[in-house]
Amino acid sequence: MPVPAPIEALSTALYWLDYAAVAVFGASGAIAAARARQDIITFGFFAAITGVGGGTLRDVLIGAPVFWVQRPSYIIVCLLAALAVWCLAPKSASPHPDGKPGKRLMAMMWLDALGMAAYAVVGSAKALNLGVAPFSAVVMGVLTAAFGGVIRDVLAGEPNLLLRRDIYITAALLGACVFVGLSLLGLSFWPAGLSGFAAAFALRAAAIHWTWCLPAFGAPPK
Amino acid sequence: MPVPAPIEALSTALYWLDYAAVAVFGASGAIAAARARQDIITFGFFAAITGVGGGTLRDVLIGAPVFWVQRPSYIIVCLLAALAVWCLAPKSASPHPDGKPGKRLMAMMWLDALGMAAYAVVGSAKALNLGVAPFSAVVMGVLTAAFGGVIRDVLAGEPNLLLRRDIYITAALLGACVFVGLSLLGLSFWPAGLSGFAAAFALRAAAIHWTWCLPAFGAPPK
Amino acid sequence: MPVPAPIEALSTALYWLDYAAVAVFGASGAIAAARARQDIITFGFFAAITGVGGGTLRDVLIGAPVFWVQRPSYIIVCLLAALAVWCLAPKSASPHPDGKPGKRLMAMMWLDALGMAAYAVVGSAKALNLGVAPFSAVVMGVLTAAFGGVIRDVLAGEPNLLLRRDIYITAALLGACVFVGLSLLGLSFWPAGLSGFAAAFALRAAAIHWTWCLPAFGAPPK
Repeated sequence: MPVPAPIEALSTALYWLDYAAVAVFGASGAIAAARARQDIITFGFFAAITGVGGGTLRDVLIGAPVFWVQRPSYIIVCLLAALAVWCLAPKSASPHPDGKPGKRLMAMMWLDALGMAAYAVVGSAKALNLGVAPFSAVVMGVLTAAFGGVIRDVLAGEPNLLLRRDIYITAALLGACVFVGLSLLGLSFWPAGLSGFAAAFALRAAAIHWTWCLPAFGAPPK
Repeated sequence: MPVPAPIEALSTALYWLDYAAVAVFGASGAIAAARARQDIITFGFFAAITGVGGGTLRDVLIGAPVFWVQRPSYIIVCLLAALAVWCLAPKSASPHPDGKPGKRLMAMMWLDALGMAAYAVVGSAKALNLGVAPFSAVVMGVLTAAFGGVIRDVLAGEPNLLLRRDIYITAALLGACVFVGLSLLGLSFWPAGLSGFAAAFALRAAAIHWTWCLPAFGAPPK
Repeated sequence: MPVPAPIEALSTALYWLDYAAVAVFGASGAIAAARARQDIITFGFFAAITGVGGGTLRDVLIGAPVFWVQRPSYIIVCLLAALAVWCLAPKSASPHPDGKPGKRLMAMMWLDALGMAAYAVVGSAKALNLGVAPFSAVVMGVLTAAFGGVIRDVLAGEPNLLLRRDIYITAALLGACVFVGLSLLGLSFWPAGLSGFAAAFALRAAAIHWTWCLPAFGAPPK
């Protein structure tokens, strides 16, 4: 399966998208640490694991050198995100009076949504670049987008996103499919990537706003 | 340590055994999702992780290209298994009146037993093929057999098989030892592999049937 | 960034430190299995995962061949540690009357502290040897030191060390920084390594003895 040429050319763009996704995921990891009332070191650890976890798994699976090992700036970005959350996040827990999720949880959700959409595209693009089959490239996009958050939840002892019946994996899947599909149709990186990002983010945003979820196994059809 | 030649020759057989193990493990992952009343996307994710998780860890550890990345058909097999479970599994929870495990749990256990026995052999064989030392090949067989199920349980938030005091790891260990031992003695792949498979499956089946378990630390000898 | 030459020369020393760290971490894993009243197979599994888990992650991340695959003696050391704990650990649970941690937990803590300090140095040194950037080498030291214990806790279903607000990651971080810093200043392996080990162990020991912990997010400054 030939690698679409325009993707190859735009790896610098990927590089910056990667940083942005690392930063927002890192911040979401630090917010998880804030919710668990952890110390500054755990803030940094959670930020780093959430920020680079998905991409690390992708690189290990496709046999690429792990992206942050020779570019420690990725980890530094995560640590800065952790520091920002430590300094800026409201100290007092403020559970919403109506039982709705508080502001901190909502902030984490939206950062997570941005990171997820960016990683779905970046993960697929890096895999396509390395000559991985398109189907597996979609899987890599989903893994890159979802895995950091899954590790964060497992380590924080919270129910992970796989069990929450959210539209999360689904949104990452949509974004990765749109991006890989458009790339195979010959679109260059930016239109394909922005379409994938927009599709993933829009679906996730709608799911957060209207609290959509997929029907559970065994539930009666409505 | 020389690689037994007959194993090298039979990698096509391995290939098919691999698919079979992936399918049954995938189904067991989907059944775990059914028990947790998840949606279809989580069915697919659990099926894929359980199906290819053990083999993925093996390939990463022995430095082989991860087996499903260039052959997405493995993932597709998992997704088909998830779809089959979604369509065919009984929708209503049917806890057994006597407090025994229900049918769904039993189905998962038996599929798991088949996958475990196949993976104990396949995992060891692939490691031997790549020139890994026999002792480590046994370890790879056990990891390949056990790791998919361990991830499934950790992600599903259930007590994982390491904590259940089942004869599970033990059965995988027996199967891998039998296979590697017979291979070193010069047997060709099929007799060695079938012996290993049979040993692992028989021990696991007996343990399920008679609810055997190993003595716990500190328990008085009977 | 040039690799400090004296480190390269002393890889034999590393090799033995590695064994010692594997053995003490292996024993701490087996003690976790003893606390959970597991069987002998789970003792071995926990000992192996805890003993080699951190180093395995390090090797996968820096792209080195996983250290125990071609040298199964590491796994054998873990299994011997498991056997020793099985035979020697007191069988009866002996909770301390005052609600303090019992002897078994304290033994695990101190073994863990030794292994952590050794691994913080060994992990960084191996990464430096392979030409990894100093900042990432520090990260590798911390991961090598912490990851085995984190996996042990996740698999044992206990709250993992990231959530305990202990001075643990902090101690590993200090040890790795001291070692990498002194190495970059041109010190040879033994003085740099012993300084790093001593710094990590001393901080951890003080934290255990005086039950120090870092301030939690949102806690009022004292």
